[in-house]
Amino acid sequence: MTNPARHEKSRLSRNEIAFRPAPAIVLVEPQLGENIGAVARAMLNFGLSEMAIVNPRDGWPNERAMAMASGASLVLERARLAASTAQALSGFTYALAMTARPRESLLPVFSPRAAAEEMKRRIDAGDRCAIMLGAERAGLSNEDVGRADAVVSIPVNPAFASLNIAQAAVVMAYEWAIADGRAPAPSDLVLAPQATKAQFEGFIGHLFEALEERRYFFPPEKREAMQRKLRTAFARAALREGEVRTLRGVIKALTEGPPKG
Amino acid sequence: MTNPARHEKSRLSRNEIAFRPAPAIVLVEPQLGENIGAVARAMLNFGLSEMAIVNPRDGWPNERAMAMASGASLVLERARLAASTAQALSGFTYALAMTARPRESLLPVFSPRAAAEEMKRRIDAGDRCAIMLGAERAGLSNEDVGRADAVVSIPVNPAFASLNIAQAAVVMAYEWAIADGRAPAPSDLVLAPQATKAQFEGFIGHLFEALEERRYFFPPEKREAMQRKLRTAFARAALREGEVRTLRGVIKALTEGPPKG
Repeated sequence: MTNPARHEKSRLSRNEIAFRPAPAIVLVEPQLGENIGAVARAMLNFGLSEMAIVNPRDGWPNERAMAMASGASLVLERARLAASTAQALSGFTYALAMTARPRESLLPVFSPRAAAEEMKRRIDAGDRCAIMLGAERAGLSNEDVGRADAVVSIPVNPAFASLNIAQAAVVMAYEWAIADGRAPAPSDLVLAPQATKAQFEGFIGHLFEALEERRYFFPPEKREAMQRKLRTAFARAALREGEVRTLRGVIKALTEGPPKG
Repeated sequence: MTNPARHEKSRLSRNEIAFRPAPAIVLVEPQLGENIGAVARAMLNFGLSEMAIVNPRDGWPNERAMAMASGASLVLERARLAASTAQALSGFTYALAMTARPRESLLPVFSPRAAAEEMKRRIDAGDRCAIMLGAERAGLSNEDVGRADAVVSIPVNPAFASLNIAQAAVVMAYEWAIADGRAPAPSDLVLAPQATKAQFEGFIGHLFEALEERRYFFPPEKREAMQRKLRTAFARAALREGEVRTLRGVIKALTEGPPKG
């Protein structure tokens, strides 16, 4: 059984993401439904939800697109169908064209990162931004690139440059999320208090004392260098309070030897 | 017919990319051959070529992986098969674990960008770096994460966080390429010389003169403001020499009217 409260919470946060201003993706004459669905997934993965589709080869709606999108089907349900690139772009104020061949135009070329930062500035100022992606094989026509304000080009390996449109969408949507301020959740490391110098010295002192008893520091003239080496290795680990306690337990267990009987 | 010289050139540049030091991708217990192939493509797209595979569910080699990899099959042909994560990592000096749940560990968490920059510094200093990616559903086990020096987490939309391993590989490989200094090819814009101020003023003077003749600047007290507005709009376009010539031709055509007869 699904938990309805949890479901509701998930829907709310999806809508919240969906309503946050973000660029739209405009797919121009996409061929495979699977790719349209994969683009929808990539978009929702990174908080984009507005898609427009210009003349999809296999018509619209497309079952294969819906199947591939699975959890991201809301992106496809809301997608606008357009008869031409001009129509798809009509409500936007700034348009980028993704292309692997920026050479052939006099438009500025952005890396995905620079493009995301430019769109972030513009969207914060009230612009409506669209990113055009062309058909699987041919990419965008020169005419469609000519409708853009700038070109975005992903710096791929020139010896193997064939990036599919869903992969290109992943890169662009990921950069949007970063420009929009998303960062990975921290690990428990940030919550675990770092050991104080006193706690660290308590552990080091405990270790050196146990080693001293066992005549580990030999010959005596090397004691200082040996101790510095150990201290440095442990210092680099930036031990947490709990880890210092654990390590003192380890020394205790090692010095006590196996339990009798 | 294929052009053998061209083929040779492509092979050479592929090898050149393959030999440039870069991180390896370690797939831990991947399930679908398609995903292994898609990871190989993403790697080669961004100049990575070294893959290790720990216990693939459907055995190895895998036909579906080869079909999906198509042009990137060389990555799969060279992939090392390992019986355990420990064995796959044995020759590396630095390992990262990609996981959507960084919370549960005390390892540092990197964004893909920070991880790529860290690996770039290390690889330039001679380190051998590996990036671990877990199985499609479960991701990496806590035990495998525990073998890493740090965690990488892609900051996805928490309401739709299911990123497949090929998409995760695209993001990580893309960030590697950027950290390694790859940038998009510029457009012809950088080659087209910007108009000098004299050329720009020649065009603006031509335009204002033609408009003056037609009594466009009316009433006269608004002339200055109207001229400033036009000048600003054209200045923002940062016109190239050729564009200035084109625009002077446009003024000429408009002022001459249609050809007689």
